[in-house]
Amino acid sequence: MSINGSLGENQPQRRGRGRRPAAEVRRGIVDAAASLLFEHGMIAVTFDRVAALAGSSRTTLYKWWPSVGALAAEAYFAYVEHSLEFPDTGDIEADLRTQLRAFVRLMTEEGAGSVITELIGAAQNDPALRKALSATYSRPRRDLALAALRRARARGQLRDDFSLDIIVDQLWGACYHRLLIPDEPLTLGFADELVRNALRGAGTS
Amino acid sequence: MSINGSLGENQPQRRGRGRRPAAEVRRGIVDAAASLLFEHGMIAVTFDRVAALAGSSRTTLYKWWPSVGALAAEAYFAYVEHSLEFPDTGDIEADLRTQLRAFVRLMTEEGAGSVITELIGAAQNDPALRKALSATYSRPRRDLALAALRRARARGQLRDDFSLDIIVDQLWGACYHRLLIPDEPLTLGFADELVRNALRGAGTS
Repeated sequence: MSINGSLGENQPQRRGRGRRPAAEVRRGIVDAAASLLFEHGMIAVTFDRVAALAGSSRTTLYKWWPSVGALAAEAYFAYVEHSLEFPDTGDIEADLRTQLRAFVRLMTEEGAGSVITELIGAAQNDPALRKALSATYSRPRRDLALAALRRARARGQLRDDFSLDIIVDQLWGACYHRLLIPDEPLTLGFADELVRNALRGAGTS
Repeated sequence: MSINGSLGENQPQRRGRGRRPAAEVRRGIVDAAASLLFEHGMIAVTFDRVAALAGSSRTTLYKWWPSVGALAAEAYFAYVEHSLEFPDTGDIEADLRTQLRAFVRLMTEEGAGSVITELIGAAQNDPALRKALSATYSRPRRDLALAALRRARARGQLRDDFSLDIIVDQLWGACYHRLLIPDEPLTLGFADELVRNALRGAGTS
């Protein structure tokens, strides 16, 4: 471990010792934060520990992230991003089912569930984390889903007389509900029924 | 008020010094906890402060509640219970709309939103609170909704081929989603569209 410097110190450039590009340093920090977050939870994500693991200075971390929550939110998003791409086959029901199933698997089989519930939980008492979570995670995810829903509406697959936003709450929101208030389990079958009911309705009339 | 005895009372009666019935003492404590919770948030709900406000001893509180979270959950439920009765007019769409609107009003206009999000947030890192919240609040609420949905299915108003539980997640879960991850506002119009989509579907086919 060779951590250079510490809090509040403006270090001169070191010479003769190749300096890593900022993007690479940043990625290393986010990776280190993600590995602490997914292995040990939010409690392990401190600027000290992340800096030590990434081989960066705390000064660098303070410069880029206003709070450790903001760093944790970005780390979470970087870790899950690849699992949450939105398919576009032209069949909105199939695409929603594929995406929601991927989300459920990520939460239940790939360990993201306990991390995101901890982040959302902590965000209730931490406005900076709430803002970071929205900016780096929930808002972009919502926008991706909305774009797919808009295309489906343009293809005539969705009614014209309601706000598309509510589908996000009825599908992903319903899953978060089972994660955060775990009275019933989050399963793939649940995801399938959600998609079907959201599109076809639960009523008989 | 003359409810005699109840919970945990194995003590000899004190003589010559009017002793309040246990149910009355308990209600006084829950009321005190609710008033701290709704005025100042979870941080104000400590056994010390509740005991002082209720004129009870901490010993009594420790005897009845395993944690301050459990007391807060019970206080929350006692406070909101009257607002959340489930109507039964025979028309499930109308009844769901009435109930969901009452829930939205309670959250947004009557101050319960910030309290329940704080409780759910804290529950993510507090298994005792999670258990108390489920036992005193979310599970009984879910069961009430399920009973209404079962009656509607028996009347032929809901399809037979899905788990009724998911309606709870698609309606109330969607509302909690907007409370806990507030990218979009929780409104009465949102509640109305949720009910309509859940029953009639958002799709055109």
